[in-house]
Amino acid sequence: MSKLPNVGTTIFSVMSALAAEHKAINLSQGFPDFDCSDELKAMVNDAMQQGYNQYAPMPGLPALRNAIAEKVMALYGQQVDPETEITITPGGTYAIYTAIAAYIHPGDEVIIFEPAYDSYIPNVLVNGGKPVRISLSFPDYRINWQEVRSKITPRTKMIMINTPHNPTGAILQEEDILELEKLVAEFDLLVLSDEVYEHLVYDGAQHLSILKYPNIFRNSFVTFSFGKVFHNTGWKMGYCIAPKHLMQEYRKVHQYLCFSVNTPMQHGLARFLATPSHYLELSSFYQEKRDYFLELMRDSRFTPLASKGSYFQLMKYDRISDEGDKAFATRITKEFGVASIPVSAFYENGKDDHVVRFCFAKKKETLEQAAARLSRI
Amino acid sequence: MSKLPNVGTTIFSVMSALAAEHKAINLSQGFPDFDCSDELKAMVNDAMQQGYNQYAPMPGLPALRNAIAEKVMALYGQQVDPETEITITPGGTYAIYTAIAAYIHPGDEVIIFEPAYDSYIPNVLVNGGKPVRISLSFPDYRINWQEVRSKITPRTKMIMINTPHNPTGAILQEEDILELEKLVAEFDLLVLSDEVYEHLVYDGAQHLSILKYPNIFRNSFVTFSFGKVFHNTGWKMGYCIAPKHLMQEYRKVHQYLCFSVNTPMQHGLARFLATPSHYLELSSFYQEKRDYFLELMRDSRFTPLASKGSYFQLMKYDRISDEGDKAFATRITKEFGVASIPVSAFYENGKDDHVVRFCFAKKKETLEQAAARLSRI
Ligand SMILES: CSCCC(=O)C(=O)O
Ligand SMILES: CSCCC(=O)C(=O)O
Repeated sequence: MSKLPNVGTTIFSVMSALAAEHKAINLSQGFPDFDCSDELKAMVNDAMQQGYNQYAPMPGLPALRNAIAEKVMALYGQQVDPETEITITPGGTYAIYTAIAAYIHPGDEVIIFEPAYDSYIPNVLVNGGKPVRISLSFPDYRINWQEVRSKITPRTKMIMINTPHNPTGAILQEEDILELEKLVAEFDLLVLSDEVYEHLVYDGAQHLSILKYPNIFRNSFVTFSFGKVFHNTGWKMGYCIAPKHLMQEYRKVHQYLCFSVNTPMQHGLARFLATPSHYLELSSFYQEKRDYFLELMRDSRFTPLASKGSYFQLMKYDRISDEGDKAFATRITKEFGVASIPVSAFYENGKDDHVVRFCFAKKKETLEQAAARLSRI
Repeated sequence: MSKLPNVGTTIFSVMSALAAEHKAINLSQGFPDFDCSDELKAMVNDAMQQGYNQYAPMPGLPALRNAIAEKVMALYGQQVDPETEITITPGGTYAIYTAIAAYIHPGDEVIIFEPAYDSYIPNVLVNGGKPVRISLSFPDYRINWQEVRSKITPRTKMIMINTPHNPTGAILQEEDILELEKLVAEFDLLVLSDEVYEHLVYDGAQHLSILKYPNIFRNSFVTFSFGKVFHNTGWKMGYCIAPKHLMQEYRKVHQYLCFSVNTPMQHGLARFLATPSHYLELSSFYQEKRDYFLELMRDSRFTPLASKGSYFQLMKYDRISDEGDKAFATRITKEFGVASIPVSAFYENGKDDHVVRFCFAKKKETLEQAAARLSRI
């Protein structure tokens, strides 16, 4: 009996393969088409050459955990203990899975907002939990906190949030945080906050990390990715921050799931992270790309929705076609040579608002070529 | 409620930390104190420089899976399909966990032989399964197949084997394989075969990989590690081989647990693996170390047990002390400056045969120094 009877290949693999097959410009799966920093690569290579090729400590290299704690203090004014509250993981997806494996027992309910990154629901199911799905509003993708409250039962164990949000680019606001804080206090919920795009927030907005809110953080796992922000998604490096009592159980699972994470890459990232400009410059770097892509698309028949963070831009195509989004995304990949992600893939029930997601983590030339093709549709 | 109430820090972290604290020679946790190949490091660096830093395909780089399939054919005469039967993982421990997460439902029983690598039982428990423990015979660490048969119930789902065996260095024999084959046929059991030390088999013996036995393989997950054999345990690279119908479910879990594995390291390993001598030379390389260590220890008061594979050597210390093995291992780390692993740590109930495990994956000088110290006890 399959634990995941309804799971097929992820939409990311499907669309990337379709893009490759049709030699389309791939704006589907979220990864840059430019390389990561030469300096960072040299730092990793240094570590390999210096012989840092054996097991790292189970929770991660102390130097890397210390660098993360300093960044958290600088950005969010919060003291986290690198010794007991930070664990390095092989990527952000693993960081999320591990929290669920450690805390979700069969029958536990987990509140998940849709559209949702496509690993959340299978992660809950593999561990015997019950996903409780709540749709974000359309087209601004906000949380209806009244509805959340109405879905809480005695079995509700965890609520998963994601800011900046994939696939929509929405970000949580102060008022959302206040509502979440009330629920956590009232129902003693665990919070899993996926913040892999933490540095990619635009138009002067602030990333409201759960790390800033001690009353929420005391019940939270907050997960991050190096790959998503330092342009090396293929290194599969990330981390989780949680208060000591939660991290203790998390590490029990981690130490027997993977034990430890790539040593030379941890050394390289520790050195790279020590220079704050390496992450402080990211929001303007990506905002420029977003703005450029929007400008290039102005004369197309696509209608952009607001993207306040992440490196994704949603576009409505209702002025072009009334096809379903999967058919549309497939067709424009084949006929116009640009691959995107149909947003209905992020809903369990396939809710289809006729919106596709474009990844703008691409070179200028790529965005120009893609926009030129999309403007012909 | 903890899923792993009885889990503390792994013995490997405990003993490595104690070794560091007392500046002892660390023959406890299994990793080399020499570096991996310069050629291999250069291959990984090449891949980084060439810009292979974004997501690899979910099941792994085709070039690496092809190289593995060729190795399997060369060594075990077995055709495995790289497209559907091989998945690259972040290490051998993860490769094992994923099979259990995909197939073990709450209440399923899993037969585990003790002494057992310390992740097996927690992996089963996290997934709600029930470990059924069977002790190997002492001092030759063989499986009593009559006892195995007597422990099979309608809930028995999987049997885990490990050859060459950690911590004992025992290897499975043809007669074991025949017994296993009968049980698999009779009870339709899944087999998880941990073969991370596949190339480390001594005295002309053959590694009997489950890959060689189609009647067992059709129900099996076979897991491997690059780190254990190519001297880079810190890279956390491994893989799982299973027949297509099992691999399908395995990948459903993997694609949402980690999605994919370090890209530049996969490129490097694919190139390195293309030269068969890189793995063919390993058994004589490590046999020399084992033989040297045994020779150096001949005048000590330790009694070696047979080590036919892996890079571990068990030693009885009954001529030295009647302390428990944890007390003994701790004391000799502190007083004599050599860290080992007490074998009772590999038993749930702490069965203590007064045996400690030494890792001989060390430079000659290290083995000499360690043996000199141990000979003073
Ligand atoms: C792990 S593949 C998916 C990458 C990603 O985060 C996305 O495209 O949304
Ligand atoms: C993952 S740390 C343990 C390494 C090892 O396999 C051992 O020492 O037995």
